[in-house]
Amino acid sequence: MLAMVQMNVRIPLDFDKQEAERLKTHEKQRFQELQRAGKWRHIWRVVGRYANVSIFDVESNSELHDILTSLPLYPFMEMEVTPLCRHPSSLHEDDR
Amino acid sequence: MLAMVQMNVRIPLDFDKQEAERLKTHEKQRFQELQRAGKWRHIWRVVGRYANVSIFDVESNSELHDILTSLPLYPFMEMEVTPLCRHPSSLHEDDR
Amino acid sequence: MLAMVQMNVRIPLDFDKQEAERLKTHEKQRFQELQRAGKWRHIWRVVGRYANVSIFDVESNSELHDILTSLPLYPFMEMEVTPLCRHPSSLHEDDR
Amino acid sequence: MLAMVQMNVRIPLDFDKQEAERLKTHEKQRFQELQRAGKWRHIWRVVGRYANVSIFDVESNSELHDILTSLPLYPFMEMEVTPLCRHPSSLHEDDR
Amino acid sequence: MLAMVQMNVRIPLDFDKQEAERLKTHEKQRFQELQRAGKWRHIWRVVGRYANVSIFDVESNSELHDILTSLPLYPFMEMEVTPLCRHPSSLHEDDR
Amino acid sequence: MLAMVQMNVRIPLDFDKQEAERLKTHEKQRFQELQRAGKWRHIWRVVGRYANVSIFDVESNSELHDILTSLPLYPFMEMEVTPLCRHPSSLHEDDR
Amino acid sequence: MLAMVQMNVRIPLDFDKQEAERLKTHEKQRFQELQRAGKWRHIWRVVGRYANVSIFDVESNSELHDILTSLPLYPFMEMEVTPLCRHPSSLHEDDR
Amino acid sequence: MLAMVQMNVRIPLDFDKQEAERLKTHEKQRFQELQRAGKWRHIWRVVGRYANVSIFDVESNSELHDILTSLPLYPFMEMEVTPLCRHPSSLHEDDR
Amino acid sequence: MLAMVQMNVRIPLDFDKQEAERLKTHEKQRFQELQRAGKWRHIWRVVGRYANVSIFDVESNSELHDILTSLPLYPFMEMEVTPLCRHPSSLHEDDR
Amino acid sequence: MLAMVQMNVRIPLDFDKQEAERLKTHEKQRFQELQRAGKWRHIWRVVGRYANVSIFDVESNSELHDILTSLPLYPFMEMEVTPLCRHPSSLHEDDR
Repeated sequence: MLAMVQMNVRIPLDFDKQEAERLKTHEKQRFQELQRAGKWRHIWRVVGRYANVSIFDVESNSELHDILTSLPLYPFMEMEVTPLCRHPSSLHEDDR
Repeated sequence: MLAMVQMNVRIPLDFDKQEAERLKTHEKQRFQELQRAGKWRHIWRVVGRYANVSIFDVESNSELHDILTSLPLYPFMEMEVTPLCRHPSSLHEDDR
Repeated sequence: MLAMVQMNVRIPLDFDKQEAERLKTHEKQRFQELQRAGKWRHIWRVVGRYANVSIFDVESNSELHDILTSLPLYPFMEMEVTPLCRHPSSLHEDDR
Repeated sequence: MLAMVQMNVRIPLDFDKQEAERLKTHEKQRFQELQRAGKWRHIWRVVGRYANVSIFDVESNSELHDILTSLPLYPFMEMEVTPLCRHPSSLHEDDR
Repeated sequence: MLAMVQMNVRIPLDFDKQEAERLKTHEKQRFQELQRAGKWRHIWRVVGRYANVSIFDVESNSELHDILTSLPLYPFMEMEVTPLCRHPSSLHEDDR
Repeated sequence: MLAMVQMNVRIPLDFDKQEAERLKTHEKQRFQELQRAGKWRHIWRVVGRYANVSIFDVESNSELHDILTSLPLYPFMEMEVTPLCRHPSSLHEDDR
Repeated sequence: MLAMVQMNVRIPLDFDKQEAERLKTHEKQRFQELQRAGKWRHIWRVVGRYANVSIFDVESNSELHDILTSLPLYPFMEMEVTPLCRHPSSLHEDDR
Repeated sequence: MLAMVQMNVRIPLDFDKQEAERLKTHEKQRFQELQRAGKWRHIWRVVGRYANVSIFDVESNSELHDILTSLPLYPFMEMEVTPLCRHPSSLHEDDR
Repeated sequence: MLAMVQMNVRIPLDFDKQEAERLKTHEKQRFQELQRAGKWRHIWRVVGRYANVSIFDVESNSELHDILTSLPLYPFMEMEVTPLCRHPSSLHEDDR
Repeated sequence: MLAMVQMNVRIPLDFDKQEAERLKTHEKQRFQELQRAGKWRHIWRVVGRYANVSIFDVESNSELHDILTSLPLYPFMEMEVTPLCRHPSSLHEDDR
């Protein structure tokens, strides 16, 4: 099941810098774990913003919800989820 | 140079059906040509809508503009272009 | 896989009345077929508008896309799809 | 009387964690009480967000107002209420 | 059951003038019938626009839906329905 | 002179509870004074929100401005003012 | 009674040019009549658009409604009305 | 050079009352100075809000920018600037 | 006097192709005339859209209004005008 | 590669004044460095707001992202990036 997730991160100006760094490190570890597992298929940065466009490939909506809401930076994120499906014209196997 | 392009297609209800089919066939050919050339990196359908989310990888903004505005269905499309760049945490080579 | 679909119908004022009735009859038949199959789980009318709120329970995003885009009234509809999942507090089995 | 209520919860980052847990537990109890009473007919989670889509079946607008504004998490919620009615095509008795 | 309905009327510039007058006359008759029956409690014009703010007092959402969608000018209207309830501070009996 | 005023109240979560109660009591007194004077013609609650829809009948825009900005809860309110006038079809004297 | 009215004019591309000129001439006559009468106090063009910002000074909302809806170009206009009142700091008599 | 400036003032609830009064007094002085100089041509209050609609007549955009950003209440204001020009139909000399 | 103008062009699908080409040729001539005169200082295309971002440097708002509304493609354009002024940090003479 | 960047700056009212001045000085130095390098091609102030419209000419989206996110005032800015390309009608070499 494919979905695009657009994530915007807003960490308050007065949030503890060290704690923020710790959360970002955890976020990166979790992200790479999910990338290796094939769940978090793609990620790109949005130019000029602390934001990304991501493509997920998961078993179910519940799995996606659990993945997203347990991200270390989740409390600082606004998320928009767009359900996608394979485009019949695509020649690429991995645009499934 | 990476960019996300969100395309929405609106063909008027009274538009000639045969002409529409002819344009869709050309659109598909042009799309696959660009996909094979590595310019149109990804495409996914947006569930429930005549719309797609696409990722382009081009030499320049001008090349992207020329590709998009010469699509056979361009006169029926609304497009939103979001400039992207590689995410430093990504382990995938092709999320460049 | 659960999703809320909000459908708004706009049939142009000058559209052929008989053809509109024919399409509405087909829409109703197709709807009831999908309701019996358990795919179109719920439907409610939005007060004062030619619109509905529906809950779908399907195998995949692709199945949902195929169902929605093949509805007889689809060319006259604007759709908004919101992916849902079971709420852990719910006591009802069928809010799965 | 049927209504869809879309609830978004925003608990401030610096809100006391224990108090938040206490309120969530009360919210769940109150929700299940109302679900058993048949007032809160359905609830689903919105994927990736601390939000739900709910269907209420109440005696009157006043009853709905009292139910919603006395929820333990009400001070942290934004609510959008959409009045619904039974769809004449529905075969399901409980889409009343 | 109380509701505010905000109605905006847009009759196309090229719509037949006589037919428009006929519909407006029917609209007025139907309005006054509903006003006398106590269903359409209040109506006010919005300054500078072909629009009104109305208060309805009906038995159910279904009754409101049937009233609104059978108005002679309904095909030309956009409607926004806001569910209301009596304000506990009001001293007026008829703000029920 | 008639106007609809839509008032939304937002009292910050950490605002002193006793002071809030004191302001609400004053607000109610002031409201009923204005209702008795015939200035604040109608008030209804918006279901599920700390908000109301009100109809004012005043001598002038200046009088309305003075009434609204001197309400005890004014500093916590967002207001939208829509100028209205009597609808010529209305049979009710008091929809003046 | 003071009000700002923002008027946007949209005459369809295929509207009869002569009829449009005739309406514009009538509009100008009616405008100057109202300006001389002191009702239409000010008018300014919005740069780059077929639009104006106007200040009216009328007896009542009803008078304003009648003036606006009887303008020759009214069927082609979108209007936004903002009720104003004299600013207490103003030294100018005619900002009443 | 004419411009409409719409100013909305938001002073935080916990801002020092005396300091706010001091700033408002300075704002009024500065306003009247500019009004006398013919720069701040008109000002009106927006009913029910701490906001105004103003017309400026200045030498240049830079002069307008300097005037607006040096207002004592500027840090609490949101401003929207709309460039205007004389309307050719106006009979009033001072709508220049 | 500097201003940014964002122009979006929408030529209807069924508009005469030859007439459109004729208007585009005139538009280009007029543009280059204004560019040579130093009035139309800059122009850039917006990627993927029939739109541009332009910078004008004119004597007055009236001059800008006359230039914009007399463009051959003006009837097909939506324009947004943003008044600008020189940035004090700029080292470039021509960012005046 | 050309892009328009619209930057809005919001420094909280209670932010340390000296630190703000220090950041603004650094911002100006960094800006002029980038202007001299030909990366930050143009900058203009938006009248009445702490905001600018800028044109960048960079090697890649990644370079633009690095430039923008490392600006001293970046944590206080909201940015909107619009990809541009040379307009074929332009006679100016530097509108490349």
